[in-house]
Amino acid sequence: MKVSARNVLEGRVTEVVEGAINAEVALELDGGETLVAVITLQSLKRLEIKVGSTAIAMIKAPWVTLMTDHEGLRLSARNCLSGKVESVSDGAVNAEVALTLKGGERLYAIVTRPSVEALGLTEGVAATAVIKASHILLATREE
Amino acid sequence: MKVSARNVLEGRVTEVVEGAINAEVALELDGGETLVAVITLQSLKRLEIKVGSTAIAMIKAPWVTLMTDHEGLRLSARNCLSGKVESVSDGAVNAEVALTLKGGERLYAIVTRPSVEALGLTEGVAATAVIKASHILLATREE
Amino acid sequence: MKVSARNVLEGRVTEVVEGAINAEVALELDGGETLVAVITLQSLKRLEIKVGSTAIAMIKAPWVTLMTDHEGLRLSARNCLSGKVESVSDGAVNAEVALTLKGGERLYAIVTRPSVEALGLTEGVAATAVIKASHILLATREE
Repeated sequence: MKVSARNVLEGRVTEVVEGAINAEVALELDGGETLVAVITLQSLKRLEIKVGSTAIAMIKAPWVTLMTDHEGLRLSARNCLSGKVESVSDGAVNAEVALTLKGGERLYAIVTRPSVEALGLTEGVAATAVIKASHILLATREE
Repeated sequence: MKVSARNVLEGRVTEVVEGAINAEVALELDGGETLVAVITLQSLKRLEIKVGSTAIAMIKAPWVTLMTDHEGLRLSARNCLSGKVESVSDGAVNAEVALTLKGGERLYAIVTRPSVEALGLTEGVAATAVIKASHILLATREE
Repeated sequence: MKVSARNVLEGRVTEVVEGAINAEVALELDGGETLVAVITLQSLKRLEIKVGSTAIAMIKAPWVTLMTDHEGLRLSARNCLSGKVESVSDGAVNAEVALTLKGGERLYAIVTRPSVEALGLTEGVAATAVIKASHILLATREE
């Protein structure tokens, strides 16, 4: 598999909630974190996702929001992953920030340069990656 | 709160519609505009969002689409905010456009450079920011 | 219509599925491909979208994921469009990739430069554009 999504994380499905159009899937990553994804019900069936099966989460870097101080704040985003900044690659408008999560996985985020400065994102700084459940693609391997 | 989302807008919840998996939340911004966000039902409950409560909308700049001429067009995006271009910061591939909304708020959009040229986005030009309801993160403050 | 969304594709509605909050709309493009979009139910009604009507899909380039090898993989994304790379415009952090779909339409994706290298994206290479149904804006023309 070769995919342009910078973040490809494998895990085990721990919960599935079905709605009329969408379904919510909880995935426990190898590093211990849990990701929640919302996909269409039809995809859930086509991918044969059920509790206990293995799934791959794909998250494009521009869909990841970073926070460095969210004390006293509750977020609608179902996915808030804590980590430390590993590196920052600067462009003219955007920057790519690599984060090492507690479980060891690496997560990439594209943020604007003013945000890199405002959040003080440099190597070693603690940051939280925030990802909406509807921004995660899931994949399964055919048996 | 320090967040890489370039757009952080506070408002008052005016309507909540609950579905099986998702919920739709309407927010009246301080400047008068209304934003509609779709979040998961579980987040709605966790954030204790109800009519009359205060909420913060976070929107990453790459999730904002700009239009300069949409006469005779109806859009599925629930959020169409009118404003004027305040500034354009150019990169090699992308550009960041700052828009001043009617109510005074500033909204940032990342668009490609060919789009900046095709739309003629320069200071003072009227433009509409288009945002899908499912691309808005909501936050509330703990009491 | 002038819109910063790099991808504007017209088609005919072939199927509509309604949920409590969202609705799923299938669109057959002029080139023969089918796109599935999830929009809110309220937008479906406001745009008067029904089977047989014409609709315009708008997709921002950063919302498109590219794959070059997905053998044996099933994806939750409802939209997987095959094509060939037509050109690559490089920036410091990001690159814009233009893809020609089988039906002749052009599709743009913004991916990071490391992805361009990892996937070997150069002119003529076969690639698949992956788009989540919830990342497509729909528009209709007023009669």
